[in-house]
Amino acid sequence: MKKRRIMLVVSYDGTAYNGWALQKSTHNTIEEMLNRAIHGLTGEEVEVIGASRTDAGVHAYGNIAVFDTSSSIPGDRFSYALNHILPQDICVTESREVHPDFHPRHCDTLKTYEYRVLNSKMPVPTRRFYTYHFSMPLDIDVMNEAAHYLEGEHDFTSFCNVESQAVTHVRTIKKVEVFLHGDEVVIRVIGNGFLYNMVRIIAGTLLQIGRGKGKPSDIKEMIDKQDRKAAGPTAPACGLFLMKYEFLDGIPGPETAEDD
Amino acid sequence: MKKRRIMLVVSYDGTAYNGWALQKSTHNTIEEMLNRAIHGLTGEEVEVIGASRTDAGVHAYGNIAVFDTSSSIPGDRFSYALNHILPQDICVTESREVHPDFHPRHCDTLKTYEYRVLNSKMPVPTRRFYTYHFSMPLDIDVMNEAAHYLEGEHDFTSFCNVESQAVTHVRTIKKVEVFLHGDEVVIRVIGNGFLYNMVRIIAGTLLQIGRGKGKPSDIKEMIDKQDRKAAGPTAPACGLFLMKYEFLDGIPGPETAEDD
Repeated sequence: MKKRRIMLVVSYDGTAYNGWALQKSTHNTIEEMLNRAIHGLTGEEVEVIGASRTDAGVHAYGNIAVFDTSSSIPGDRFSYALNHILPQDICVTESREVHPDFHPRHCDTLKTYEYRVLNSKMPVPTRRFYTYHFSMPLDIDVMNEAAHYLEGEHDFTSFCNVESQAVTHVRTIKKVEVFLHGDEVVIRVIGNGFLYNMVRIIAGTLLQIGRGKGKPSDIKEMIDKQDRKAAGPTAPACGLFLMKYEFLDGIPGPETAEDD
Repeated sequence: MKKRRIMLVVSYDGTAYNGWALQKSTHNTIEEMLNRAIHGLTGEEVEVIGASRTDAGVHAYGNIAVFDTSSSIPGDRFSYALNHILPQDICVTESREVHPDFHPRHCDTLKTYEYRVLNSKMPVPTRRFYTYHFSMPLDIDVMNEAAHYLEGEHDFTSFCNVESQAVTHVRTIKKVEVFLHGDEVVIRVIGNGFLYNMVRIIAGTLLQIGRGKGKPSDIKEMIDKQDRKAAGPTAPACGLFLMKYEFLDGIPGPETAEDD
């Protein structure tokens, strides 16, 4: 039977995992869990292709994975079937058959991240894995003013882990907004692509400015310096959520029967 | 030195614990963690007195504990000092010296519980320990109508675990309200005292009525029957939060210096 390509939308609690991507040193990754669950379901050895390699401790509501299968399971049934096998900290919220050439990293996309800060005097135990507790007062207006300097196309070397192996550090951020949601300060970043640790460095830097260390226009100088040491600290992984992927040219459907 | 009584407001993630109360079969309780932390701080062997013995997996923002100490640590410093010793899933959000006779279970109080239901088609991994995932549609108006029948003074035998050893099952519920908070349906229950599993049985019963099994006025018959089998199922522990204690006659302060 001809192979079909299945796309999964994956939600996970990253707390217990060493990130998304397969690693030589550990089997404890989201990717490995998905590969194993698919093997359990279809008997096939697969390696899913992920859209975003989130770090250890980072969470997702809408990461994307694709894989090829010869099984006859309808595309939309994979989510239910896989959720019976996957551990409870990983959930496939949607599945569908897509075009065999669809590759989630070779598409024009918009990615939305949220960095969630619990801005309270005391920590809240039930939220320790899902927010970064920051007890100092934050000026949200100042953070938003600073955020605007990040928008647009820039070389984000200053906002990138020095171990990055990206060919270019030029990225386009469409929008950065900071808002209060209950007792959380949320930093929402939307862009076409992000460098290693980029959102966490943006969050760490905006938090410094929001607590009064530096002024909004400092962001411009940080970008211009193209030096990681110019920007603020990398905020902890636990506050970061990959919210969603938008495929700007749509997601191509499977080939029609006559292609077979 | 004369003993002083210290009151703690305690917030915790109940996921990893076998509930609040000391048990013969396990050391893994909130009470034991507090006793050990106080011992680590003061060197004294103490047994805290808790206001509410929450079950395994139940969370709290505002449970109350008191203990006696000969240490000279100021009352308001215990919270900071204990938080350095306690595991991250327990936090003392407030501490103060109170009258040596103050006993949190011998006061007129109002307790507020919230039962949180994630009402969505798919589960959300990051919220699996802090909500009960209920995928069927819920009619909040119907749930509120049913909730009103619970308010007032009743014999709540039907809403009490059969293993309860309470002398009387008569309790007064001041208010039960059901509301939407984002994608959560929250059942908030306020009363002067609760029986074993009472809030979880109330939640399980309101969810049945909210999904269309039975009608609001059924609650009246369930109460009248004084039989646990008349009410709905016990909802899982993970959705339950002890929100706060209000001491209706206030909290008496420490004795003045001339009493010493």
